[in-house]
Amino acid sequence: MKITMAHGSGGRSTSQLIDEIFRASSSNPVLDMMEDSAVVDGDTKIAVTTDSFVVTPLTFKGGDIGRLAVCGTVNDLLMRGAVPKYITTAYIIEEGADTGTLKLIAESLERTAKEAGVTVIAGDTKVIEGSGGVYINTTGVGFVKDGADIKSANCCEGDALIVSGTLGDHHAAILSERMNIENNIKSDCAPLCEMVQNMMSAGVRIHAMRDITRGGLGTVLCEFAKNAGCGFEIDEDKIPITPEVRGFCKILGLNVMHMGNEGKLLAVVSESDAQKALEIIRKSRYGENAAIVGRAVKGGDVTLITPLGGRRKVTELYGEGLPRIC
Amino acid sequence: MKITMAHGSGGRSTSQLIDEIFRASSSNPVLDMMEDSAVVDGDTKIAVTTDSFVVTPLTFKGGDIGRLAVCGTVNDLLMRGAVPKYITTAYIIEEGADTGTLKLIAESLERTAKEAGVTVIAGDTKVIEGSGGVYINTTGVGFVKDGADIKSANCCEGDALIVSGTLGDHHAAILSERMNIENNIKSDCAPLCEMVQNMMSAGVRIHAMRDITRGGLGTVLCEFAKNAGCGFEIDEDKIPITPEVRGFCKILGLNVMHMGNEGKLLAVVSESDAQKALEIIRKSRYGENAAIVGRAVKGGDVTLITPLGGRRKVTELYGEGLPRIC
Repeated sequence: MKITMAHGSGGRSTSQLIDEIFRASSSNPVLDMMEDSAVVDGDTKIAVTTDSFVVTPLTFKGGDIGRLAVCGTVNDLLMRGAVPKYITTAYIIEEGADTGTLKLIAESLERTAKEAGVTVIAGDTKVIEGSGGVYINTTGVGFVKDGADIKSANCCEGDALIVSGTLGDHHAAILSERMNIENNIKSDCAPLCEMVQNMMSAGVRIHAMRDITRGGLGTVLCEFAKNAGCGFEIDEDKIPITPEVRGFCKILGLNVMHMGNEGKLLAVVSESDAQKALEIIRKSRYGENAAIVGRAVKGGDVTLITPLGGRRKVTELYGEGLPRIC
Repeated sequence: MKITMAHGSGGRSTSQLIDEIFRASSSNPVLDMMEDSAVVDGDTKIAVTTDSFVVTPLTFKGGDIGRLAVCGTVNDLLMRGAVPKYITTAYIIEEGADTGTLKLIAESLERTAKEAGVTVIAGDTKVIEGSGGVYINTTGVGFVKDGADIKSANCCEGDALIVSGTLGDHHAAILSERMNIENNIKSDCAPLCEMVQNMMSAGVRIHAMRDITRGGLGTVLCEFAKNAGCGFEIDEDKIPITPEVRGFCKILGLNVMHMGNEGKLLAVVSESDAQKALEIIRKSRYGENAAIVGRAVKGGDVTLITPLGGRRKVTELYGEGLPRIC
């Protein structure tokens, strides 16, 4: 079935769409009340984040927009040391969208929410003119433990930089789909709950954390350098990257420092906790290729150290990059 | 300036857009940290709601998509008896959008948030292909007082139905803009904090509440009838409506029972509290034209009683209605 503008009227067609696609995929006692707001248990400190997902194509090797919409938001909560609890999902659907694809997306979203331990507590559906596109906004609420204080301003000289796995996979997967390039590169799209919660419960002194999405590691480090009183050095040969992605980057002239990921984080941890943190991440789901890639240094620059010892200034991504990657 | 795909890259152009338009309009200590999630004070019971706004045109008599995006979400929180506290704003912007219009929208959104007493704590910006459209998702978090239990299942026979003011204004205003009809009809787009909070603090026994948006009063009552163990009767001549909107409906053959509003609520209150509730709403901002329009009755039907005593079954909106009204 194809979506029509009538599905966005707010009347019977809208409620059929919700019943048949969204409620069928995602059912829990809170959501089923279908009131205007969900009322749920709170906590003294809450973390809140919002993100819209506009990736194209809607499905790709290693994931789809539904899985992405959960991972992106859950990971943003984790980065502040919060335990993700609730998520809201708002679909903007272009007319002509296929209800089969919508069902697949809604089911994938729900499965990923279960994996990440979050409950979908509120939703919304709007229909607009267009040609079959789907956009999803997810907003996440998490609980923050007393004393958790993870933010970019806390980075300090000497801290170790840990990247939780190979870089560039999501970006290369999306680009491959768009350019019809056949390869085995899969999106890394994943919720990073396990590695973060394991580090927190082991008492690792994490100063700052960020999931390495649009703009890549280079942009994250430049933003951190703006907020913190230090700069960063990255050893180019320490950056984890699969041979496939390395080859892909070489052919297309892409810089892995600016490539987006959807299941990788950068943790800036106290130097003395670096080995411990690395081991914990490597033993956690999605963390087996983690590596210490650099350190926080005096000054405010972000510098890439090449294998031959050359020093290259890293800037944030400028210009177009690859849009609609997430 | 026109928006280009580069503004959606996640790199420098994105952060310029955020700095120049969104951060300039909305500045508060929580948002300025610009981390992935905002960490804010919570409470034991929280209400959460999400809504995307896709109204076209972006600005209209009586409001704009920014004001609408705050009102819609704040009102949804109020309808569960929650005190609105925080709001997140996620913009999906089509390339070609005008930054002047974006600025106007962002400023209006911020002004309305102040009026409603909510703080914008997180945001997101994505750019997609298109022709200058703007979509906004807002997700709201509110605190729920112990004992508040407002939901459609609580309606019971004998309850009075109060509508907080004239119906159809928003719908008629949007339709007028789209059809280039010159008139004085203005959207009613407004946050209903004052009337709800005044009723709650006066101890009015509100059984259920709903803002009367897409689908109109008819659709709201049909949804309530599904969840509650009762039906509803509406006296057609008690429905508040301005002469302009009445005339507009007559000419175009519209049924006010299915017209959307953005600053009106239906309160289902205990019969003995009806007069008190009505007086409170009338004395509150945006409530001067409130009226008792009907009652909850045995059975499960929703019935409109005409001025001549005829009885007409009310159904939920079926078919297209007016899409992209909110």
